Amino acid sequence: MLRVLIVDESQERALDLCQGVAAAGHLVAAVLPDAAELAKRVQEIQPDAVLINTDSPSRDTLEHLATLDRDYPRPVIVFSGDDDESIIRRAMRAGVAAYVVDGLVPERVESLMKVAVARFEEFQSLRKERDDAERKLSDRIAVDRAKGILMKARGLTEDEAYHALRKLAMERGRRIGEVAQDVIESAKLLIG
Amino acid sequence: MLRVLIVDESQERALDLCQGVAAAGHLVAAVLPDAAELAKRVQEIQPDAVLINTDSPSRDTLEHLATLDRDYPRPVIVFSGDDDESIIRRAMRAGVAAYVVDGLVPERVESLMKVAVARFEEFQSLRKERDDAERKLSDRIAVDRAKGILMKARGLTEDEAYHALRKLAMERGRRIGEVAQDVIESAKLLIG
Repeated sequence: MLRVLIVDESQERALDLCQGVAAAGHLVAAVLPDAAELAKRVQEIQPDAVLINTDSPSRDTLEHLATLDRDYPRPVIVFSGDDDESIIRRAMRAGVAAYVVDGLVPERVESLMKVAVARFEEFQSLRKERDDAERKLSDRIAVDRAKGILMKARGLTEDEAYHALRKLAMERGRRIGEVAQDVIESAKLLIG
Repeated sequence: MLRVLIVDESQERALDLCQGVAAAGHLVAAVLPDAAELAKRVQEIQPDAVLINTDSPSRDTLEHLATLDRDYPRPVIVFSGDDDESIIRRAMRAGVAAYVVDGLVPERVESLMKVAVARFEEFQSLRKERDDAERKLSDRIAVDRAKGILMKARGLTEDEAYHALRKLAMERGRRIGEVAQDVIESAKLLIG
C-alpha cells in the first residue's frame, strides 16, 4: 500500500483519480490544486508516489517536477491531454516515470503505479551507478592532484603523500577524495 | 515515421496492432509470431521500435528482450495482460521502455510510441553517462598500474612512464587505458 500525493487543477477530475487510487488499494495522502512548491510539499507529506492530472503540463509544472526529481525523487505519473513530443521529452528529463496521454481510466491506476514504481527504481539504480562511477573518478583525480601537491610542497614520496591523505581522511571521518579536494583548495590559498 | 517490428503470438491480435501502427503514421516492418532470436531479427530488419503483444511475457521472451537491450537496444513497448510485479520488474531490467497492462487501444499507439521513444533516449543517455564514467575510471586505474609496472621494470620516472604509454597509444591508435591494460596483461606473462 502506497501513500499517494495527487495534483489536479480540477476538483472533479481529482475525485476520479482518488477513486482510482483507493480502488488500487493505495492511500490518498493529499490533493493539491497545482504543482507549486511540489518538492517542499513532498518533503512535508512524504508520499511514496505522485500522480499529476493535467490538460498539459505547463513550463512551471515541468520545472517543479525537475526540482522534485533533484531534491526528493519519487515515482511520478503524469496524466496529460497533451501528446506534444517536446513536452513529453521535457517530462522524461524531469524524471517522470510514466506519462499517460488521455489514459486516465481509474481501473488502470493500479497497474500504472506498479509499472511507474518499477521504472523509477530501475532509473534510480542506473543513476546511482553513474553517480558512484563519477564520484570515484573525481575522487581519484583529486587524490592524484593532491598527492602531487604534497610531494612537491613537502618533499614526500608518492606513497608518503598518499598515506598522509589517508590519515587525514580517517581522522576527519571523511572520504579521501574530499580531503584531497580540501588540500587542492588550500594549496591555492597557501602556495598560489 | 518509424519502422516498427511487431511480435504477437496471435495473428488476429497482430492485425489490431498493425492498424494502430499504421494509423499512427508509422510503418510495419515485420510481424513475428514470437521473440525467438529477437536480437538477430532486429539486426536484420533494423526497425526503429519493437512492439510486443502478449498475454504474459514468458521467461524466454524476457531473456530475448535482455539480449536485444544489450546488443541492439531499441525502444520496446510491451502490451501485456499480466500485471505481476516481478514480471514488470524483470521487463524494466530488460530495458523495456513502456509496459502497458490491458491497454492495447489502437488509437493510443501513437502517443505510447512517442513516450516510449523519449523514455528510451533518456535512459540511453543516462546509461552512456554511466558507461563513460566507468570507462574513464577503469582507464585511470589501469594507467596508474601500468605506470607503476613500467617505473619498476625499466627504472622510469612517473612522467616518463606516462609518456611511454601515451606514445604507444598514439602509435596504435588506441585509448591509453587499453594500452595500459595490455601492459598489465603482458607484465603478468613477462615478469610474473
